[in-house]
Parts: sequence; C-alpha cells; structure tokens
Amino acid sequence: MVKVMATGTFDILHLGHIYFLKEAKKLGDNLTVVLATDSTVRKLKHEPVNPEEIRLKLIKELKVVDKAYIGHEDDMYEIVQEIKPDIIALGFDQIFDEKNIEKELKKRNIKAKVIRLSELKGGSDLEGTRKIIAKIISAYEFQKNMEKIEGK
Amino acid sequence: MVKVMATGTFDILHLGHIYFLKEAKKLGDNLTVVLATDSTVRKLKHEPVNPEEIRLKLIKELKVVDKAYIGHEDDMYEIVQEIKPDIIALGFDQIFDEKNIEKELKKRNIKAKVIRLSELKGGSDLEGTRKIIAKIISAYEFQKNMEKIEGK
Repeated sequence: MVKVMATGTFDILHLGHIYFLKEAKKLGDNLTVVLATDSTVRKLKHEPVNPEEIRLKLIKELKVVDKAYIGHEDDMYEIVQEIKPDIIALGFDQIFDEKNIEKELKKRNIKAKVIRLSELKGGSDLEGTRKIIAKIISAYEFQKNMEKIEGK
Repeated sequence: MVKVMATGTFDILHLGHIYFLKEAKKLGDNLTVVLATDSTVRKLKHEPVNPEEIRLKLIKELKVVDKAYIGHEDDMYEIVQEIKPDIIALGFDQIFDEKNIEKELKKRNIKAKVIRLSELKGGSDLEGTRKIIAKIISAYEFQKNMEKIEGK
C-alpha cells in the first residue's frame, strides 16, 4: 500500500484544493493530509479565515481524504516521521524546494519520494483562497461605492 | 432504501453545511443534494461567491453526499418529481414553510415526508457563509484603517 502525504492550509475549500488532493492520491492508494497550523499560516501567508480545528474538520469531510492531521509547530519533519509516507506530494505553487526537502528527509533517514504536481489548467478564476477573498472584497467595495453614489 | 433530499446554496463550505447534510443523511440511507441556481440565490440572498457549476463540483466531493444536482429555475417541485425522495430535509434556518411544501407535494401526488432539522449547537461563530464573508470584510476594513493610521 502506497501512502501519499500532502500538506497545505486548506482555508475556504475550492476546486484548486480538490484538484491537488486528487492528483496527490493518484500517486498511491491512501492520502493523508497535514494542515499548516494557524501560526504557520500567519507567518507564511495571512491570518487564516478558518482556524486550524475547523480546517481539520472540513478537510476530513472530503471523499478524497483518508486521514488528516494538524502539523507540528516548529519541525515540519516530525509529522513526516509519524506518518511515514511513501510519497510527499507538493502543490504546483507550494514554496518548498524539492531538493532541500529530500536532503532533510535523508538526514532523518526517511525514505519518502518527493513529487511536484502540476497546476489545474483551464479552471475558473476562483481557484485559490486569496482569489475568493479578493472577489468578496471587490463585491463589498463595489457595493460601498454604489451606496456613495446612489445613497443607501 | 430511504432516499433523503436536501437543498441549499452551499456557497463557501462550512461546518454548518456539514452538520445539516449529516443530520439529513441520518434520516435515511442515501443523500441527494439539490443546489439553488445562481439566479435563485441572487433573488433570495446575495450574489453567490461561487457560481452554480463550481458549487456543484465542490458539494460532490463531500463524503456525506451521494448525488448532487442543480435545481430547476422556476418550479422547485420539478426536481423533486425527478429525484423521488422519501424524505425532504429542511435546514433549521431555511425559509420554506413545511405545511406549504406538504400541500404542494400532495397536489403533485409526491409522497415525500418533510422534516425540519435542528441547528448545530455550540459550533464556532464561523458557521454560515455570510459570517465567513463578514469576517473577511472586517479583516479587510481593519487592515485599511491600520494603513490610514500607520501608512502603507
């Protein structure tokens, strides 16, 4: 049984997430998802909309997901050692460097293969949590401007 | 086999949706979800963030969902006649009137039972698409105000 691991924030689920997770699962038989903690998300991206325990509950509801955990705070390899995946799948836009991960895995005697996945092509312009947030804010700005022009 | 049907917008998935769908499924063996069309959402609530074809693809990815369709534009009973559910589950805050639905079903000779579900208690304050949108907008307003005070 080939165990695949995929990591990410998974805040406000969208089709880009689904595509990433399905492509990851195709690499093996079983998909374990590791979620970035809220403090990691704050450091790397922005304040999460959904806190980690909600993100965890939601991701577990997806058909494609077999198991899901929240990662450890400081050492991202700790959870890799616990999960023992055969393959670590990286999303097309995830900032990790494959070579660096492979070096760190080797150092810890973890025998996982690292595979970078491709981007979802021809999707809608809503694949991406930040794009969804941008759409919400632009609708809000539009509404506020209309109120300024037309009155409430 | 008892077929349950649940309807809704399901725009930006959250734990309130999951709770509703799981409670609905408990009423039978098989859960079919019918999504409101974008134009119905516009009439009843607000501009949807995710258009209907994306909402449909996402809801189909949930473990709890067996089948999902987009509803018809004008007559909500058309799709009920096609799906032939044994039970129609209503969310705690859905605006339909049970008695009225039962009357309309009888008129069309559809033998589905209508069951109103309870609210998720003790959840977070993020259960609700509008609450998620409000959180995003308030974070945006906060950031804009900080920029006004501190400069970009």
